Amino acid sequence: MSGRRKPVMPRVGIVGAGQLARMTYAAAIPLGLRLRIFAAKSDESAAVIAARPAIGSPEAYAQLAAFAADCDIVTFDHEVIDPRYLSALEAGGNCLRPSASAQLIAQDKLYQRRELMARGFPVPHFSEIADIEDVAAFGQRHGWPVILKVARGGYDGRGVWTVGDASTAAELLLRAREHGRTLFVEERLAIEQELAILVARRPRGDVVLYPVVETVQVGGICREVRAPAHIAPGLATQVACLAREIAAAVNGVGIIAIEFFVVHGTPLINELAMRPHNSGHYSIEGCITSQFTNHLRAVLDWPLGEPGLVAPAVVSVNVLGREDDDDPRLHITRALELSDVHIHLYDKSPKAGRKLGHVTALGSEIAEVRKRAWQAATLLGMTPLGEGSR
Amino acid sequence: MSGRRKPVMPRVGIVGAGQLARMTYAAAIPLGLRLRIFAAKSDESAAVIAARPAIGSPEAYAQLAAFAADCDIVTFDHEVIDPRYLSALEAGGNCLRPSASAQLIAQDKLYQRRELMARGFPVPHFSEIADIEDVAAFGQRHGWPVILKVARGGYDGRGVWTVGDASTAAELLLRAREHGRTLFVEERLAIEQELAILVARRPRGDVVLYPVVETVQVGGICREVRAPAHIAPGLATQVACLAREIAAAVNGVGIIAIEFFVVHGTPLINELAMRPHNSGHYSIEGCITSQFTNHLRAVLDWPLGEPGLVAPAVVSVNVLGREDDDDPRLHITRALELSDVHIHLYDKSPKAGRKLGHVTALGSEIAEVRKRAWQAATLLGMTPLGEGSR
Repeated sequence: MSGRRKPVMPRVGIVGAGQLARMTYAAAIPLGLRLRIFAAKSDESAAVIAARPAIGSPEAYAQLAAFAADCDIVTFDHEVIDPRYLSALEAGGNCLRPSASAQLIAQDKLYQRRELMARGFPVPHFSEIADIEDVAAFGQRHGWPVILKVARGGYDGRGVWTVGDASTAAELLLRAREHGRTLFVEERLAIEQELAILVARRPRGDVVLYPVVETVQVGGICREVRAPAHIAPGLATQVACLAREIAAAVNGVGIIAIEFFVVHGTPLINELAMRPHNSGHYSIEGCITSQFTNHLRAVLDWPLGEPGLVAPAVVSVNVLGREDDDDPRLHITRALELSDVHIHLYDKSPKAGRKLGHVTALGSEIAEVRKRAWQAATLLGMTPLGEGSR
Repeated sequence: MSGRRKPVMPRVGIVGAGQLARMTYAAAIPLGLRLRIFAAKSDESAAVIAARPAIGSPEAYAQLAAFAADCDIVTFDHEVIDPRYLSALEAGGNCLRPSASAQLIAQDKLYQRRELMARGFPVPHFSEIADIEDVAAFGQRHGWPVILKVARGGYDGRGVWTVGDASTAAELLLRAREHGRTLFVEERLAIEQELAILVARRPRGDVVLYPVVETVQVGGICREVRAPAHIAPGLATQVACLAREIAAAVNGVGIIAIEFFVVHGTPLINELAMRPHNSGHYSIEGCITSQFTNHLRAVLDWPLGEPGLVAPAVVSVNVLGREDDDDPRLHITRALELSDVHIHLYDKSPKAGRKLGHVTALGSEIAEVRKRAWQAATLLGMTPLGEGSR
């Protein structure tokens, strides 16, 4: 770096180059920032639009360390970095936001459950399992079927199984052991609704809370997000209060996304992530300040922006890869005929189940807004949800 | 290019790497596009955030041609390319949008005046001048002072002089001749108001019109843009009708920005540009579809987005370089304390008069919105306009 002038703006780097990094990159531009991208491959969603991305393996400590050395602040678009690496980076004087210890909670679902329960937050009944006897005992206590989950590495519904009996559970336990993975067991809930909320939090604790939104999940994958959630004000307040407390308890910095199940009218924590989140893409056009902008502002310890909605109803629908590998990019001009829907494509090659883009519609009335968002998603190749989905 | 797969999306390139290209680059990201940037220098505003910008001189035909060869569509963030180069690029089979012939009108203010007058559009009285006798005759006919303008290369008020007498005019003519520049003369108008409007136009003529806005100019530099303009509905309609006709008459493709003087309640065309324009930065947050997004959609011949305002009042204020080279980037955290103002910094080093950024505020009431926008601009180092400015 000798001979170069010190940059005027802090050097922020993001580890990971998926669509979250891509949208964070776009949000960095108006702020006058040159976000640095650490990509595993040069054709990743954020790597193809970023200036001079660093290409390296997130599993190679030396490459991560070299990247971090060139940044004043390092943040993340995923939670897959080995926690020992994160600790070593911090020990080496790098500023990680969120911190290595905070990220542990997002990385390990079992640890997350334990920590949140220990702090008195409402979580589903769950149990560690050493062997099949533990699963059987849990099933007896809480009823079958039960849910088995991978503690680390679960993502978008992969790594979650609904299990009806002990022999199926035994098979899954065996396979998990073969892969060196830890499973835990959880009660199956009669979920009435799924909610999510984003908190943006600065290092010393200033926060802003986004509105509570409703998510529609199919097979563990988020299909649609509705803002604001159509729920009783009391429930919204309860979720917001919990979110504020959780963000502080886990010492998150940046965006903390918290997903809730509603069971018997009461919120239970499903999962939390410490990064911009799929449930917050609506905020790009739907809020005064998007989650990506506030993630940057928070990790920079800059004043946060207003999170409020700019319209009474905002709906985002995910554009996912189909089994036939149909490419939504080929249909963009059809979708743009809907002149008042916001199309986002992530420049990823199609693959079944992969998040390839999303669309967002704004308006005054939720039913009309949903219809418009789904029209756009349909033109991009999606199949509307059945009438059964709320 | 052999061995590479054909990209799924059209390859759009933009010649020029200033803040207009930077903001167009940001707008390309959600559309799944990889906008290519042709920059004169690697530290230009758009070059520092773009993936693999092409660095070359806009005065070197071979470099331009090499860039164009790698694009399906070429567009522009300025109007300085030699028209012979533009024609040659087109003759070589490149798709320029706007076309070489359309760009001539934006490049040469005298030609622009002549063409618009010939088509019956309202322009100020003007005259070509061969020598000082022509200026004197014009002054006698239309009164002194007169305005002298450079036909080509004028930008942001540079190249425009208010001239009180023939001897001053003679000096300016001499200097222009030394620089190989053509001047023309124009009446000095009693300007009541300055208005601007953006048109987005597709190759076959589909257009959308943005709202008429009011611009506040000081010394030929735009300081503030207010949307919508506070004018009689009849005047707004008149401006919109003219804009639609002009965009078609000049065969513009992409954004066409047209600036008007209001004199005795009547609009006269001041100037037009065929690219995203400073008077349209408010559209990033202020309109359903920003001028940058619609510029891309128009040059791609894609369906255009809704141009309507998302709030009753939107105000943008430019952040300009000061005489003391104060750097607004150093003040960004102060300005962000205003949590509901949108800050845009272009990552340019400060220089007196240079456009370094802008801020945009939205709200329900123009006076409150102006106040908030100017608070942010002031925190970034600007001096509020005197009370004299409307």
